[in-house]
Amino acid sequence: MEEKKFVENITSQKEDFSRWYTDVILKAKLADYAPIKGCMVIRPYGYALWENLQRVLDEKIKKTGHENAYFPLFIPKSFLEKEAEHVEGFSPQVAWVTKGGDEDLIEPLAVRPTSESIICSMFSKWIQSWRDLPLLINQWANVVRWEKETRLFLRTTEFLWQEGHTAHRTQEEAEEEAIKMLNVYKEFFEKDLSIPVVAGVKTENEKFAGALRTYSIEVLLADGRALQGGTSHNLGQHFAKAFNITFQDVDGERKYVWQTSWGVSTRVIGALIMTHGDDFGLVLPPKVAPYQIVIIPIWKDEKDKEKIYNYVDDVATILREYFRVFVDKDEEHTPGWKFNEWELKGVPVRIEIGPREVEKEEIFVARRDLRTKISYKKINMVPELKNLLEDIQKTMFDKALKFRNENTYEVESLEEFKRIIDKRRGFIKASWCGNGNCEISIKELTSATIRNLPFDWKEEKGKCIFCGKDTNIKALFAKAY
Amino acid sequence: MEEKKFVENITSQKEDFSRWYTDVILKAKLADYAPIKGCMVIRPYGYALWENLQRVLDEKIKKTGHENAYFPLFIPKSFLEKEAEHVEGFSPQVAWVTKGGDEDLIEPLAVRPTSESIICSMFSKWIQSWRDLPLLINQWANVVRWEKETRLFLRTTEFLWQEGHTAHRTQEEAEEEAIKMLNVYKEFFEKDLSIPVVAGVKTENEKFAGALRTYSIEVLLADGRALQGGTSHNLGQHFAKAFNITFQDVDGERKYVWQTSWGVSTRVIGALIMTHGDDFGLVLPPKVAPYQIVIIPIWKDEKDKEKIYNYVDDVATILREYFRVFVDKDEEHTPGWKFNEWELKGVPVRIEIGPREVEKEEIFVARRDLRTKISYKKINMVPELKNLLEDIQKTMFDKALKFRNENTYEVESLEEFKRIIDKRRGFIKASWCGNGNCEISIKELTSATIRNLPFDWKEEKGKCIFCGKDTNIKALFAKAY
Repeated sequence: MEEKKFVENITSQKEDFSRWYTDVILKAKLADYAPIKGCMVIRPYGYALWENLQRVLDEKIKKTGHENAYFPLFIPKSFLEKEAEHVEGFSPQVAWVTKGGDEDLIEPLAVRPTSESIICSMFSKWIQSWRDLPLLINQWANVVRWEKETRLFLRTTEFLWQEGHTAHRTQEEAEEEAIKMLNVYKEFFEKDLSIPVVAGVKTENEKFAGALRTYSIEVLLADGRALQGGTSHNLGQHFAKAFNITFQDVDGERKYVWQTSWGVSTRVIGALIMTHGDDFGLVLPPKVAPYQIVIIPIWKDEKDKEKIYNYVDDVATILREYFRVFVDKDEEHTPGWKFNEWELKGVPVRIEIGPREVEKEEIFVARRDLRTKISYKKINMVPELKNLLEDIQKTMFDKALKFRNENTYEVESLEEFKRIIDKRRGFIKASWCGNGNCEISIKELTSATIRNLPFDWKEEKGKCIFCGKDTNIKALFAKAY
Repeated sequence: MEEKKFVENITSQKEDFSRWYTDVILKAKLADYAPIKGCMVIRPYGYALWENLQRVLDEKIKKTGHENAYFPLFIPKSFLEKEAEHVEGFSPQVAWVTKGGDEDLIEPLAVRPTSESIICSMFSKWIQSWRDLPLLINQWANVVRWEKETRLFLRTTEFLWQEGHTAHRTQEEAEEEAIKMLNVYKEFFEKDLSIPVVAGVKTENEKFAGALRTYSIEVLLADGRALQGGTSHNLGQHFAKAFNITFQDVDGERKYVWQTSWGVSTRVIGALIMTHGDDFGLVLPPKVAPYQIVIIPIWKDEKDKEKIYNYVDDVATILREYFRVFVDKDEEHTPGWKFNEWELKGVPVRIEIGPREVEKEEIFVARRDLRTKISYKKINMVPELKNLLEDIQKTMFDKALKFRNENTYEVESLEEFKRIIDKRRGFIKASWCGNGNCEISIKELTSATIRNLPFDWKEEKGKCIFCGKDTNIKALFAKAY
């Protein structure tokens, strides 16, 4: 009874995907609504997940030669205004500090929506010569973009992210860097989060405010909507000119630097939930799960308890050397309640240990993703569990990729396009003439946008889905979060 | 010549300690002034140091059972006002957001100066039963306290810190927690940073706004001033009552929780610099130094270069398994310039490798703290360097402790007190009657404040240094940052 009631508390995906999403977050205690419009609290379980994501991504960012630094939260209004497109893109979303202590500020300070302008002001001071280049900086920080609605992890007024900011001697180097970091993100999503992504270039309408070109990785979620997983911008010399970032080149000439910026945020947690979750709750990939294994002792008689606890402690001690392990000895709840609880929390592997396991020197293992069960001999459990976790990591990716392939539609008429968007949604591959007006018209008609022009899609002759003009461009359309 | 000029760029401590401090920070590239009043930029070398401090302290915080979480940057004005002393203490320093996007906010939002009020509002939602206690939360975050002057790392409008927030069933548990975390800080300072501290309780005048009692650890810096290294507050039920944080106790009764909060900030970097630094620059303790060892190849002829580089690479490969190592192969600068540069940056151990070292299969080692030199056989270098780094860690602590002991004065008259404060400064041990008015008068006369009432100082009969009344209290006075 208790177990049944517990599971019934989560709305099923089919019934209401959006309520399922919120239910899972609140009940797994990943996050909670804060009493400030648009803001959320990341609770310990959600933050432990974020710390793992950070650790893995930070390592990749450092391995590619970047160093972390920290720049001020506040940006003077005049700085934000230096790059015309940039201010236009961000000012509707800026929170303004107008008072400090008792004094009214002469110039309002923006709470950073992104840090290009403050970082560029420092770059112009630090960069003098070609010897100072490339300058490869990353920052982990909170940023604020005013939102009217809250969608936990996906759309909140404040969120956490990393933002890379680099300056280079040549245009080629900057372009190479922008692509390199997009590939770092792709690898992070696909290998560590088991989330397949489509990498490509954004259209002019959808690029970052102030960028020359924006690249993105796009995820197809279980409800058929797209989510932008990360972006990498080739900023060209737009900011260099606005902030006068120049260097003396090898040839003695004074030149503007070429820049990039790139970011991934706590949105990835939303992508994780909505790619892998099911009606039992979260399903977390082993590489980033706060706990990879939970062990649940099962005993009825007090006389069994000590024997079982000893065996559990022994197993836990061995496994802790290799895995992130939690032992749930709570005696308030039944094992069945705990099974549900840890399934809800998405722990990749559950180990049940009862009198039978102790007697046979085994462990009884349930994998979260497929919900299948198997026994391992205790003596072999470490290599078996290593293989199992690897298999879960891979199976989750394969399942998500299969789902995406099954929900990617190549369409040739606007009617078909509309029908798909209205019914199942998904990724739509369609010809597009390259004109921004057609793009906007399609959006108005269908609420789908061009997510990007995927690198992996070869040029193909076709007719623009909106205006019918001949074109070689294939665009990835979807309804997006 | 080049080397001489380089060192001359740093003001000597004796000439102007305050300029020495700023010179070292700017030239070692720990931080830079930001173009916003009161704000700083933490540059990669300074941030790498902060990351190491974070890692070490975070581990201790987690080991004592706390979990990290993240709460909103913004706090509604009405929340800050709920605890009367709290708002009075902080409101002169608050930065206010009054505009979000295009709309003027009905209620201004404070940029968090500290997070008690927002966290308490969530605690009141999360805590229902004694089973939910203790609730042990920590947050790594940026906070803002409006400052008119900037002193890099010591006093900036925005700074980084961790803030622990806990709720307990009983008064005793809360008190135990407050003391436990003060001891965690003490161990962190003394074992990891080699900084001796004096732990004690703050006076009523100096306690945290809203606390029942504040504990602190106090550092004596090389210029004879004190710096508060960290604080831990027993909040009693002040916030529990203001935010209505209650739980159903074992006995079925509804009760208010007992709380603590505690924090350490980027100020510790200031403490590190001013405790250990010398006229050559930074001296960093091995446990937290971004690089523990720097290797500098020394060659004159191109024919030596390859041989030496091979040997250097071999040494570096071995050492990297045990230590944080940087190999400086830059060919723009002379070895002498590099020696100065890495001394300035405070790297604990420098290894010089020239033709002689290659030939004799040795490494030539200079320790930063004592500036002494020694050769090790390559075959023994790992254990030798391990011992050396441990010795540096310990020697730095001993030196700082000796300095503190030599600069702690027990005084019995106000004249002596004033003479010490005016001349050498230092820690002053003096009797105090316990009356806040005497404390304030002493401050007005001497600009020295009571840092804390040290735990290690036994009760001792004496007469209040100001009013002459009989007392058992001995207080630690100093001029503080």
